[in-house]
Amino acid sequence: MNLFILDVDGVMTTGEFFYSSEGKLLKSFGPDDSDALSLLRNYIKIEFVTGDKKGFNISKKRITDDMGYELNLVSTIKRKEWIEKKYPLEKVIYMGDGIFDFLVMNEVGYSIAPSNADKNAIEVADYITKRTGGKRAVSEACLHILEKFFGVKSINQAINSNKELNTGEWTIC
Amino acid sequence: MNLFILDVDGVMTTGEFFYSSEGKLLKSFGPDDSDALSLLRNYIKIEFVTGDKKGFNISKKRITDDMGYELNLVSTIKRKEWIEKKYPLEKVIYMGDGIFDFLVMNEVGYSIAPSNADKNAIEVADYITKRTGGKRAVSEACLHILEKFFGVKSINQAINSNKELNTGEWTIC
Amino acid sequence: MNLFILDVDGVMTTGEFFYSSEGKLLKSFGPDDSDALSLLRNYIKIEFVTGDKKGFNISKKRITDDMGYELNLVSTIKRKEWIEKKYPLEKVIYMGDGIFDFLVMNEVGYSIAPSNADKNAIEVADYITKRTGGKRAVSEACLHILEKFFGVKSINQAINSNKELNTGEWTIC
Amino acid sequence: MNLFILDVDGVMTTGEFFYSSEGKLLKSFGPDDSDALSLLRNYIKIEFVTGDKKGFNISKKRITDDMGYELNLVSTIKRKEWIEKKYPLEKVIYMGDGIFDFLVMNEVGYSIAPSNADKNAIEVADYITKRTGGKRAVSEACLHILEKFFGVKSINQAINSNKELNTGEWTIC
Repeated sequence: MNLFILDVDGVMTTGEFFYSSEGKLLKSFGPDDSDALSLLRNYIKIEFVTGDKKGFNISKKRITDDMGYELNLVSTIKRKEWIEKKYPLEKVIYMGDGIFDFLVMNEVGYSIAPSNADKNAIEVADYITKRTGGKRAVSEACLHILEKFFGVKSINQAINSNKELNTGEWTIC
Repeated sequence: MNLFILDVDGVMTTGEFFYSSEGKLLKSFGPDDSDALSLLRNYIKIEFVTGDKKGFNISKKRITDDMGYELNLVSTIKRKEWIEKKYPLEKVIYMGDGIFDFLVMNEVGYSIAPSNADKNAIEVADYITKRTGGKRAVSEACLHILEKFFGVKSINQAINSNKELNTGEWTIC
Repeated sequence: MNLFILDVDGVMTTGEFFYSSEGKLLKSFGPDDSDALSLLRNYIKIEFVTGDKKGFNISKKRITDDMGYELNLVSTIKRKEWIEKKYPLEKVIYMGDGIFDFLVMNEVGYSIAPSNADKNAIEVADYITKRTGGKRAVSEACLHILEKFFGVKSINQAINSNKELNTGEWTIC
Repeated sequence: MNLFILDVDGVMTTGEFFYSSEGKLLKSFGPDDSDALSLLRNYIKIEFVTGDKKGFNISKKRITDDMGYELNLVSTIKRKEWIEKKYPLEKVIYMGDGIFDFLVMNEVGYSIAPSNADKNAIEVADYITKRTGGKRAVSEACLHILEKFFGVKSINQAINSNKELNTGEWTIC
């Protein structure tokens, strides 16, 4: 596998959009996901995708500015074509939760859904995490990928092979 | 069925009112509901109703400005009369969760409640979603309505019959 | 029973304190509780109490300004004495959830705890709601009190005996 | 035991990071934890540690300014060494929830994890609370420590031996 693509809302977040009278104001990201991705990115390229235009700057603040990953704005309906242009679909791992994500999950090499995802996403996913979106689902997915595709059986093994342990929540040294 | 009327708080939201010392500040809307309503609105007129005067501008920002639906301010106690003036009650599908919503649900053609609704709402509802308010309950209700009343058995079928797939979270094309 | 005293945090709210770098900013209130209290206040005096000094203005905005009830600032440790000065303890119904609330619950005429309350509160409570704090626990408590102490067996009965159905979420008429 | 060290995010909070387009804005702290720590601090020194640099000022507002405890910024990866410099590891009780916390929990005298902690943290913990982070997990841990290490069997006993019952939520007297 060459690329791990993650949807943002409902995967990295709880899926909640907190609105004030000014519009979409907040999203809720969770623990461990950033740390687990830091272990995984030594093994596979990681990218994020979102269809949420109005909340794009909120997601970008977390995903790009604080965690350092590329975030792309692509409607779920167009994601299959978007992925194909960059990578062979069969080399892609995709994690999504939404009502249209099964359209992408059906086409890629391997797919993952959080346990609280849409019913169709759950049905077509190759792997379903025990945890829900924004509550360690991504952390669990990362450890699963490390073991299944890269033979990394423990966090200690992943840490030991990691030269620069530095991201969002724990790079302060 | 001619009209799908949805209550906002506890149906489209988790029911939470986040207060600061300045008053009601935030509500939490969830994933997939906007997308599922976009599929459904090709088949049936959709309207929203709320009794929350102080939080009206928050709900309006999401429901009207971002999603494009009409939002009406009508106390639950007066909703039966309000609906009757516009439509034959037996042609209306109503989704509600609150302590007085059973008064409306008892009168309309078909009624739906999220699984965490008030006890009376649960008792009188024709259909109870598995998911809770603001956590895909509306998405589930939309797919149920598509199948039960319009014979649409899959999301693919709904997408294929949809000419303009453009709302809130996924119209960016 | 003459008086229903409710703790605020964890009873009317989820118990969460949302902090920014400026301090305590938000609390999460829930659905139906305001409406159910409006039905109950025709039968019994209702007062609120909180020990949260730093979040007092947040609670006051909801409880007093928006819902119209008295809110008192009294440490849980001092509540028994505070109640005694105003009413005979045996005429008081008290609803609380915190680690010290059992001290009050042991002394009053009747006590209620949300299902996610502190272990000791659960043990001494006369009645435990199925719902949790800020998620309809108070609504459930109100309907229980209406039935147990005032013989009101249905919401319809309570509505019919209510002359001015006007509070927070539904007085807009 | 001489020292109780607690991680902040996911232990004192729900683990959620609420982001706006300006960055990390809010964290959610819960009920009873501050009160239970006030009882425990008569028996053992209490300190907090966090690896969250960007959210440090949010945590500090709650932990230091409002509750009065020392908060240290130390990456989970470096915590074992950091603790060792101050105290014999075997005299330390540590409570953590994250993906790397098992590295610390394996080394200290006694370790505690909330029930929703990372899988490895759960596996190595000496004690797992029933409640989750930010939902009374710390309160439960405090009462467990009071009983197990200091023979305090009830909250009444702890209150009676406490001269100055004054912290965050209940010092108003």
